[in-house]
Amino acid sequence: MKEITVAASPNIALIKYWGKRDAKLNLPNNSSISITLSGNLNTITSVSFPGNINVDTLIIDGEKQDWHGSNQKINYMKEILQEMKKIAGISDNVLIESKNSFPSSAGLASSASGAAALVFALAKSFELDLSSKDLSILARRISGSACRSLFGGFVVWHKGIKEDGLDSFAEQIADESYWPEIRDVIALVNPSRKKISSSEGHERTAKTSSLYPNRPAFAESAAIKLIDAIKARDFNSLAEITMRDSNNMHATMLDSWPPIIYLEGASIEIIKGIHSLNEAHGKNIAAYTFDAGPNAHIITLDRHLSEIKGMLNEIEGIKDILVASPGKAPYELAKPI
Amino acid sequence: MKEITVAASPNIALIKYWGKRDAKLNLPNNSSISITLSGNLNTITSVSFPGNINVDTLIIDGEKQDWHGSNQKINYMKEILQEMKKIAGISDNVLIESKNSFPSSAGLASSASGAAALVFALAKSFELDLSSKDLSILARRISGSACRSLFGGFVVWHKGIKEDGLDSFAEQIADESYWPEIRDVIALVNPSRKKISSSEGHERTAKTSSLYPNRPAFAESAAIKLIDAIKARDFNSLAEITMRDSNNMHATMLDSWPPIIYLEGASIEIIKGIHSLNEAHGKNIAAYTFDAGPNAHIITLDRHLSEIKGMLNEIEGIKDILVASPGKAPYELAKPI
Repeated sequence: MKEITVAASPNIALIKYWGKRDAKLNLPNNSSISITLSGNLNTITSVSFPGNINVDTLIIDGEKQDWHGSNQKINYMKEILQEMKKIAGISDNVLIESKNSFPSSAGLASSASGAAALVFALAKSFELDLSSKDLSILARRISGSACRSLFGGFVVWHKGIKEDGLDSFAEQIADESYWPEIRDVIALVNPSRKKISSSEGHERTAKTSSLYPNRPAFAESAAIKLIDAIKARDFNSLAEITMRDSNNMHATMLDSWPPIIYLEGASIEIIKGIHSLNEAHGKNIAAYTFDAGPNAHIITLDRHLSEIKGMLNEIEGIKDILVASPGKAPYELAKPI
Repeated sequence: MKEITVAASPNIALIKYWGKRDAKLNLPNNSSISITLSGNLNTITSVSFPGNINVDTLIIDGEKQDWHGSNQKINYMKEILQEMKKIAGISDNVLIESKNSFPSSAGLASSASGAAALVFALAKSFELDLSSKDLSILARRISGSACRSLFGGFVVWHKGIKEDGLDSFAEQIADESYWPEIRDVIALVNPSRKKISSSEGHERTAKTSSLYPNRPAFAESAAIKLIDAIKARDFNSLAEITMRDSNNMHATMLDSWPPIIYLEGASIEIIKGIHSLNEAHGKNIAAYTFDAGPNAHIITLDRHLSEIKGMLNEIEGIKDILVASPGKAPYELAKPI
């Protein structure tokens, strides 16, 4: 066991995870695909054994977390920590400190990079012989989409079919250097926290939307097509598949009861702006995709950045713009934070 | 045969018509239900035989229509006119003049009241012994939803199963005096013409949305529940069924490719405003419903009008507000226009 500091990046899903076959284990109804993102967007987590603490301690963004509170993700982190300590035969109290380089209010899934950094840091610190695949399964139990942040570049999360979830893990499709021109332009529309949590949304949609039963097969088939598009570096297809999957997910949300509507006026204007740009080019030069929030992720190629920004400048209500590139898997930092 | 002037009203669908099993005959994939609307909203159509014209002539809002142009609805009107002349044994040239009391740009379906007024006026003028049900079948061929405007109050359009469409007609559920407190508050968000016509939208959704195959059964079952709610004057249920059906239709539109997005920022704010009002009341006092456009129809009861208007006043981007009540079937006017 050793002191260690690691960094992990968030990811943006091009094929979305929405609807669970097992809520406790975060087992999804369909496979999903994402790009791990770099660009000053990460979670830095350190693990140490200061000796002067009498319980395991978790501090996120300077705030000590309550292991016994109502936050489900914290409960799962505790479970994973205890399991990993047991495997490693460690009884010392552990201090985990975690910081996000991006505000969690930015609408980015800090839970993905946070959970990935946690399991990666614990494995390194405890000197456990666990593969990235093994770690992706542990991260998944904390926050489903976190499993994809254990790898860099383009990543698929296989839905799996087993009840214990051991075949529901992430795998790399292509690393971060494979298609370096790819960019994610993040247009912040509304940085306030979402009213309906993802967990609640997953459940409400699967339970109440009459259209949702068609989504898993749609997404599964889209995932297969997207892997082909990535392998062929076919941006035009990648863009169409990405936009259709985002729309498909948000359609099932709108069809839920009460409806889940994350898109706002500016989000819709961005969608229309992207379609206009693509029409003008006679091919897709960009794709929008929206997670459980109004902020747009615009997947494009670096040579189109200024055109995308020009389009965004015409839209009222965009608070900020960030640009990310394909990022790498979690890694050790030389020094603690 | 005689000169005549009639009036017919538009209708707002609570269970929507979206997707056709026969595009030529306007045969729908599901039954639909509407309220015929009064309140200075109508089409006034006169039929005469001036003798000094050498072809049948159709003038809509002062503009002479081209029987041989690309406007499909005009082509269907010509077909219906010729069939009805043949049945009546009339060879004189007919002059039809039609005026809408509401701007067609208001996002209201003037094609529904227009087609209903046309077939009603021709039948009266030609002294044909056709029932409202017969006329609804003729109006349907011009514009699907027009068949519902042949009746007042609450109206169901049975989808039918026959290939010739003779069992796809409208029928009254309850007349305009049955539930007189009902109001439709129309919030005009964007009065410009829609970019994607309804006909194109129907076809694109049915062809490209992977979620659409679940809609017809959903709507059919919703129609049955709505008839029960109307019969019980159960506004709370009527409102939920109405909102869910509108959301369900717009979800399949969003899932189409390219996506069909009629809702705008202000439309979404209205949706959220109605849900907030209903939550505050602990029951549904209002329901939103959107046709193929961004303008909201808010179904409510007269005693809630000021509260609804207060909510709408808080939303930016609403150009005008109209209020309609349950209206009556087409009727003869004493004088020509």
